[in-house]
Amino acid sequence: MSQNISTVMQQAQEAFEQYRKVSGKNRAIFLETIAEEIESLKDALVAVAHQESHLPLGRLQGEIGRTTGQLRMFARLVAEGSWVEACIDLPNPDRVPPKPDTRKMLVPIGPVAIFGASNFPFAFSTAGGDTASALAAGVSVVIKAHPAHPETSALVFSAIEKAIARCQMPPHTVQHLSDSSIEAGKALVMHPLTTAVGFTGSQAGGKALRAYAEQRAVPIPVFAEMSSINPVVLFPESLNQNHINLAKTFAGSITLGMGQFCTKPGLLLAIDSPALALFTEALEHELTQVSLHPMLHSGIAQAFDKARNTLTNQDGVVSKSIENTELTQPTPSLAQVQAKDFISNPTLHEEAFGPFALLVICKDTEELSTALKALGGQLTATLMATDEDVKQYPAILDLQSALAGRVILNAAPTGVEVAASMVHGGAYPATFDARYTSVGTGAIKRWVRPICLQGFKDWMLPGELKNDNPLKIWRLVNDVFTNSSI
Amino acid sequence: MSQNISTVMQQAQEAFEQYRKVSGKNRAIFLETIAEEIESLKDALVAVAHQESHLPLGRLQGEIGRTTGQLRMFARLVAEGSWVEACIDLPNPDRVPPKPDTRKMLVPIGPVAIFGASNFPFAFSTAGGDTASALAAGVSVVIKAHPAHPETSALVFSAIEKAIARCQMPPHTVQHLSDSSIEAGKALVMHPLTTAVGFTGSQAGGKALRAYAEQRAVPIPVFAEMSSINPVVLFPESLNQNHINLAKTFAGSITLGMGQFCTKPGLLLAIDSPALALFTEALEHELTQVSLHPMLHSGIAQAFDKARNTLTNQDGVVSKSIENTELTQPTPSLAQVQAKDFISNPTLHEEAFGPFALLVICKDTEELSTALKALGGQLTATLMATDEDVKQYPAILDLQSALAGRVILNAAPTGVEVAASMVHGGAYPATFDARYTSVGTGAIKRWVRPICLQGFKDWMLPGELKNDNPLKIWRLVNDVFTNSSI
Repeated sequence: MSQNISTVMQQAQEAFEQYRKVSGKNRAIFLETIAEEIESLKDALVAVAHQESHLPLGRLQGEIGRTTGQLRMFARLVAEGSWVEACIDLPNPDRVPPKPDTRKMLVPIGPVAIFGASNFPFAFSTAGGDTASALAAGVSVVIKAHPAHPETSALVFSAIEKAIARCQMPPHTVQHLSDSSIEAGKALVMHPLTTAVGFTGSQAGGKALRAYAEQRAVPIPVFAEMSSINPVVLFPESLNQNHINLAKTFAGSITLGMGQFCTKPGLLLAIDSPALALFTEALEHELTQVSLHPMLHSGIAQAFDKARNTLTNQDGVVSKSIENTELTQPTPSLAQVQAKDFISNPTLHEEAFGPFALLVICKDTEELSTALKALGGQLTATLMATDEDVKQYPAILDLQSALAGRVILNAAPTGVEVAASMVHGGAYPATFDARYTSVGTGAIKRWVRPICLQGFKDWMLPGELKNDNPLKIWRLVNDVFTNSSI
Repeated sequence: MSQNISTVMQQAQEAFEQYRKVSGKNRAIFLETIAEEIESLKDALVAVAHQESHLPLGRLQGEIGRTTGQLRMFARLVAEGSWVEACIDLPNPDRVPPKPDTRKMLVPIGPVAIFGASNFPFAFSTAGGDTASALAAGVSVVIKAHPAHPETSALVFSAIEKAIARCQMPPHTVQHLSDSSIEAGKALVMHPLTTAVGFTGSQAGGKALRAYAEQRAVPIPVFAEMSSINPVVLFPESLNQNHINLAKTFAGSITLGMGQFCTKPGLLLAIDSPALALFTEALEHELTQVSLHPMLHSGIAQAFDKARNTLTNQDGVVSKSIENTELTQPTPSLAQVQAKDFISNPTLHEEAFGPFALLVICKDTEELSTALKALGGQLTATLMATDEDVKQYPAILDLQSALAGRVILNAAPTGVEVAASMVHGGAYPATFDARYTSVGTGAIKRWVRPICLQGFKDWMLPGELKNDNPLKIWRLVNDVFTNSSI
């Protein structure tokens, strides 16, 4: 095993030494070519992913669109080129001591290991956002596919291989591990040539990878997107005005993809009121109306069943009995708990990954604040609020903002826009480091480091840092943003 | 002890919740006021720091200038405001599904702990670069001063306290631990309210702090600037043309501040040649000509003596016997070793923090490459090279660039320019994460995280993200850089 990983990582290092020199424009063509090759396999990909993941065909078709969209977004980013944060401070020989010429830009960090997610067989897997951002950055990638969809992953990798050949990229720029064992994953994280890890999955999985990384002689970051209960606060006036629409929105969001989204709203919080009771009744009804499909695999269905049972068996939690005709296709449900019981019981702050949410009923604003303060880091925090609600409860907005990477007003947290302004990250346990995002162009920052070149002559500098700015990128020159030449 | 730290951190959290809302312009005034207050104590500060650190008066006066310069650089950065990387993607209701309004910026992360360095009693200590960048970012700071200069630290902190009062900042925005014990440091790193750690010092110290951080329930980053031997490659033509000047330059750089700089060139590498022999002879002579002063404290002097002895006692290392009249004021020295012995012995890749360098004599380019590949991460890598040398040895430049955060052509690595384009960082063991710098405006990135606000109305948004761009900052709007309003 470790011999195999050693060979893989040595190949990844050799590929990196070539690939990091490929221009942004050529990396962009490579990313676009991967997108084209995926599109040319679309029907076959959807069919095999449907078989392996049980996700509906429409969702999988849409996910292919998102995947190729991500590849093209990174292609545009690196073709334009300003993302390297080029920064130039010109020399001043008259200063005492003389000021040197210093120029900075982001450069790729080295071979990285990407672990595919089970819940996005395309968009967070073999050619997903981690791989796309890494290839855009200029690093070589070793992919360990999720064992729940090996055929899908192999087929996507065949598209990448075709793109490597068509674009004449170094042969091992992307490699695909067929071995899906835990040992292979451990060896990948621990190999001295691995410089960073990207992972989307369970908290247990993320923590295991981080524990391996901590055993290394040279530490490396593990960028893990793990667990989040995505608290939603339903404000009083909003509930009064919209309880039916709110119930419809959240029934949809809680059960979308059978609740198998990192941003599924697993926690609803509100101050007790007659409108809240009406909302709850409506939501429970709406949850019986949604169409179901089997969960991704039996392991995830079992884990959901166990997690939901743990939550609903806690002191003070009230839930209707659930008729589960089929374990792999669980019935969506809502449970309720009073805030005082929620606040004092950390078990209730854990995620149940599937179609379930917990409603926390608060006596007053103070109890709502205390409940929010009890939570760990989150990917999202949502406010369902009228303008008047926002004006009346500024401290709740502050608390929500402190919790999460993304704060959403009046929309469900499921549905993550892939854009420069997206943050899909948050404090632990959402991820290990709230400084990074795994969605949007910002995801490229995980695979790069800044380098300062001091006293270099113009002919020695990379295009990004040359005086005449041949790439026409935006740069900070003597502390002023400009896309001009010097 | 831990009760005390709990109080301190609770106060830091309360201050953070206020201070994070202080505008960039007011943070700038605060930073400038700290600089003014330090200047008004300049004579007293230099006197007490000289007594505590043995550093020459001229150097300490210069270091105060650097310290106030850093504070003012961060003041300019946050007064201008574009550093928050504001990014706006406008909504598109016609897209299927409708595209939401998403806006992103960097926000402060929470209370941070800063550990002062012994070798920069001003510029990397109580009001040094870590504190300045943290206050610019909007986080509250708890400072643990280095025990080697407690009086200096207390006096600098009095300047900060005056600035807090003058600018009416929250009282505990900056706190100063009088307890310099290891236990206090450990409690500070492990406290649940601490969100990041800044440290400059030894590898052992940095690793200890990281080990504490790894024991936490919620992991936090330890930004530690630790050890670096700062390899310098002396290229053939450069040696042929300049061996006398090179010897003078490196005698000065190796012994500057008694070799107590993170960027001291501790390793010189060259291909064997008659010019190299002449350079070595000249450098050994120059090292006898430099003026000396005692090292910072007896502990650092003992550690240097031990580290140098360890290095010079390794197989194949040749060094002249050193007459050390006084342990706290060691005699500078150079040792030599053949590359084959250097490459195979990791002990020789370790730092001796003080006025010492090791010269590695290589048979040929291949041996030089192998020696560079054997090294860990570095703060700096230097090339002393003519244009012809650079053209002839591109692979050596590649290897140097892969090693270090800053690559320097034809200047000594000591002397770190404080500027936007500076990188003072590098892969382990130089730091734990090559993605960050502790010098230059980029240092602010350690104390912030991105947040995405989705669907917010204009009146709810912070100034940085409002449509009319009241702060006139540079923003990425629909993927285009602009400082206009929307």
